[in-house]
Amino acid sequence: MEKIIKEPKQARSVKSFEKVVQAGTVLLSDGKHQGFSILAISQLSGVSVGSIYQRFESKEKLYLVIQNEILNRLDKEATQQFSKDLRYDTEVAAVHDTVQRFAKHVATHEVLLGGMIARGMIDPQANMRGHLSCLYIGNAFKAHLKQHIKSPTHPDPELAFDMSFRIVFSCLWRWITEQDTPESSRYLEFDAMVQELCVVCERYLLS
Amino acid sequence: MEKIIKEPKQARSVKSFEKVVQAGTVLLSDGKHQGFSILAISQLSGVSVGSIYQRFESKEKLYLVIQNEILNRLDKEATQQFSKDLRYDTEVAAVHDTVQRFAKHVATHEVLLGGMIARGMIDPQANMRGHLSCLYIGNAFKAHLKQHIKSPTHPDPELAFDMSFRIVFSCLWRWITEQDTPESSRYLEFDAMVQELCVVCERYLLS
Repeated sequence: MEKIIKEPKQARSVKSFEKVVQAGTVLLSDGKHQGFSILAISQLSGVSVGSIYQRFESKEKLYLVIQNEILNRLDKEATQQFSKDLRYDTEVAAVHDTVQRFAKHVATHEVLLGGMIARGMIDPQANMRGHLSCLYIGNAFKAHLKQHIKSPTHPDPELAFDMSFRIVFSCLWRWITEQDTPESSRYLEFDAMVQELCVVCERYLLS
Repeated sequence: MEKIIKEPKQARSVKSFEKVVQAGTVLLSDGKHQGFSILAISQLSGVSVGSIYQRFESKEKLYLVIQNEILNRLDKEATQQFSKDLRYDTEVAAVHDTVQRFAKHVATHEVLLGGMIARGMIDPQANMRGHLSCLYIGNAFKAHLKQHIKSPTHPDPELAFDMSFRIVFSCLWRWITEQDTPESSRYLEFDAMVQELCVVCERYLLS
């Protein structure tokens, strides 16, 4: 009897958790980091403010749980981006495709990532979780290059793969966070920037 | 650069102004952006809190005046970094020296720039003033490359000079702002990173 009563409670509880996380994800995906509050999530999820507080204790802890759920999903997506089954006709094509896939991943989640970066500036725990995902996608990016670039011209290929990631990462990071104040007065479309990053990495790794 | 507040006319007033600006510069140069307050500046400059308020109205306006003074100085320094009198034996040497000079400028003022970037995140006016200095040093960097690289292999040299600046700028920006959470778990010394940025730009522009 006790079990029967408990089970639906747990199931309902799991469902509430999912609803809350889903509502938080929607808020953050819409770029509403500023509007991220227990009240807003309660209204969006239909779970009461009291229940949310009881489960998550504070807005800050709730944020960390939701960020973790989102980044676990993005980490999986990143792995799929750099599938081991991909094949290339040339090493140049491999370099370009690696850069393009990473850039596409970032562009797809631009708003979400921008909000998380902003949050990371004021919340060290959020920053650390974001950091882990950066390392994760970096390792996937570098492993993909290593798998497909068999004849890099750089004397220290591991360094060159690492540096390629840092360059692409840093330019994409700037693109997300520059707040309409880019470092150059020359207008550059996102796609044109990515194309140049492909050329930069190609020449750095293969010429 | 546009004047943010009126220039003081009386000699005593000029001296107080200078003392206040100097004290603010010292605070910011020591990485004490958090401790930037009218009280701290009054204590350091010997100018009364009342006089500072009378002249600058608020901590925010005082910050903008001091930031402007500092960046005017750094803009001049940047121009001197890329003197038209520099001569190089090879174009490779010219690329490396351009990157090295910019990196050295940033490393010299790392603490000051880090504080200004953090301030720019929450103060649009401060962000805009910092932005102007980024454009300024970018133009000096690109003009220097243009002066010395007569045979770039890129079909659009202006784009390649611009992209070289963006890459070096973005990596240095990350280095300043990464808060002990770099995008790679592979340790990379600042000098080693700059050396690689030289190689990246060399291969991008000349191979």
